[in-house]
Amino acid sequence: MNIEMIRAAAGRLHGAVRETPLLSSPALDAIAGRRVLVKPECLQHTGSFKFRGGWSAVSALPPEALERGVIAYSSGNHAQGVALAAQRHGAPAVIVMPSDAPAVKIANTRALGAEVVLYDRAGEDRDAIGAAIASERGLTLIRPFDEPLVIAGQGTTGLEIARQAAATGVTRAEVLVPCGGGGLSAGIALACEAEAPGLRVRPAEPEGFDDAARSLAKGSIQRNTRLSGSLCDAIVTPQPGNLTFPILARLAGPGLVVSEEAALHAMAMAFAHLRIVVEPGGAVALAAALFHPDRIAGDTVIAVCSGGNVDAGVFARALSMLEDA
Amino acid sequence: MNIEMIRAAAGRLHGAVRETPLLSSPALDAIAGRRVLVKPECLQHTGSFKFRGGWSAVSALPPEALERGVIAYSSGNHAQGVALAAQRHGAPAVIVMPSDAPAVKIANTRALGAEVVLYDRAGEDRDAIGAAIASERGLTLIRPFDEPLVIAGQGTTGLEIARQAAATGVTRAEVLVPCGGGGLSAGIALACEAEAPGLRVRPAEPEGFDDAARSLAKGSIQRNTRLSGSLCDAIVTPQPGNLTFPILARLAGPGLVVSEEAALHAMAMAFAHLRIVVEPGGAVALAAALFHPDRIAGDTVIAVCSGGNVDAGVFARALSMLEDA
Repeated sequence: MNIEMIRAAAGRLHGAVRETPLLSSPALDAIAGRRVLVKPECLQHTGSFKFRGGWSAVSALPPEALERGVIAYSSGNHAQGVALAAQRHGAPAVIVMPSDAPAVKIANTRALGAEVVLYDRAGEDRDAIGAAIASERGLTLIRPFDEPLVIAGQGTTGLEIARQAAATGVTRAEVLVPCGGGGLSAGIALACEAEAPGLRVRPAEPEGFDDAARSLAKGSIQRNTRLSGSLCDAIVTPQPGNLTFPILARLAGPGLVVSEEAALHAMAMAFAHLRIVVEPGGAVALAAALFHPDRIAGDTVIAVCSGGNVDAGVFARALSMLEDA
Repeated sequence: MNIEMIRAAAGRLHGAVRETPLLSSPALDAIAGRRVLVKPECLQHTGSFKFRGGWSAVSALPPEALERGVIAYSSGNHAQGVALAAQRHGAPAVIVMPSDAPAVKIANTRALGAEVVLYDRAGEDRDAIGAAIASERGLTLIRPFDEPLVIAGQGTTGLEIARQAAATGVTRAEVLVPCGGGGLSAGIALACEAEAPGLRVRPAEPEGFDDAARSLAKGSIQRNTRLSGSLCDAIVTPQPGNLTFPILARLAGPGLVVSEEAALHAMAMAFAHLRIVVEPGGAVALAAALFHPDRIAGDTVIAVCSGGNVDAGVFARALSMLEDA
């Protein structure tokens, strides 16, 4: 896993991926007490950065593998990313999703032409289910984060951040990244190491699901005790990946941990001041930037909003935190 | 008023304005029955295209006029656009706003350092109030639409649309534009005439406030009977401008008219499929694209979402139209 793989992924993604802008607002700067730059990957195709990794992996497959198809297991955003990438390549896609994933994610994945197989997040092993179907049908399994081609795709977010930050005159900043298995954090960290060494990645997680923060603090992979029950479903994984953790341990941290309440509040601030829709898991980095300024260094912070696929009911809860609700 | 003024405005806006992307979603294409490209000016600084016109006008002032300051009357978005442009130029700003403007717009305008003067939309004449304060303090009045520098600034949206559409392979399409006084519609129409003659502007308005559609149909300026009481407050004006109407009559139309319900539904679709926040007035063009496909020609339509400054309560109403609310 190295920067050349990220650059190669950027070449394959060119013209297919949307280059998301860097947003900002005087109101957010005032709340955080420093300049806040937001990378809104919720505006990416399928509503999250996962399209980058999906496209990176699918576009690297040989024709015969594309014809047989791909399979992915995902709480939703990776599902949609892989489904759209497969559809655009004319490849069949099977997506194994937890039965408690947001309805909008399941519906959107089916709308992208994928076959959805549901499983029980608490009682069944998605890896085993995915592997069985893959072997039966000859499908290529596209892992959500512990896969070099996927990390490379997510890393293209970091190439954009490095270029856009430099264009804004920012060469030193902490880059807060919502972290599940660590693919996006690791990819951005590798990209910044090569292109913008003054930018340091800090993974952000919700309370109770802070495996990356604890792993970084301890220096070895730690597991979450719970695997479901978070509003931040998009970034709940059992533990950091075997490929991603060593990258994070070398280049990123310490981790930042925020409450679900803070994530909802950050969604409300993104609604009011950036006019973007962010999902709870995608808002944890912005929450850390806005509501935990004492844990962050420097006069500028960059927060990645990693996704925007959220049920209307959950979004309404976030809106209810605003004065004019 | 000509294309050279728009190109000059683009020069002054370079580096200050945000180039908004062209967004799209397979789900919206499916609803509309044709390709839908969305220009999200809700992502512009201050949350609407009005920042373009504000910056264009303020940046053209001589130093002594900047020092005395500027004044604007506005239902909210022009207010914020002028306020931020003035603040960035170090100029004082007085904003005359209707007392029934959304709370978030009044608060945001004050947060940008402007002095806000409220008036009663039904009973008082904002032009008279603005002119009196302007003359008393020596302020430069920046009209919301019937001002060449403002139309030129809004027209930079059209330069971007022309370039981005061409890059996407689109050379023929109708460009649906939310229309109040017609500054944005006229500016985009002039830009397209010069840069992308296959793109035709069609103003979009809410039912009951369709002065532009009626004026275009009749060939002369028609007034609205009501001047308040629309959810689409941002685009309610008494009539098309004296400068904007002749441009629209020559280059744009016919007008499209949608219900408030359709605007709210379009906001919900933009939430779910583009992850952007659009206000009711800013959503009327997207509403026409999605829900009145029979009134539109061609295999591709471009819809401008002109602003995203909306109270949480109104946005929650739009969300309640979704199945998972």
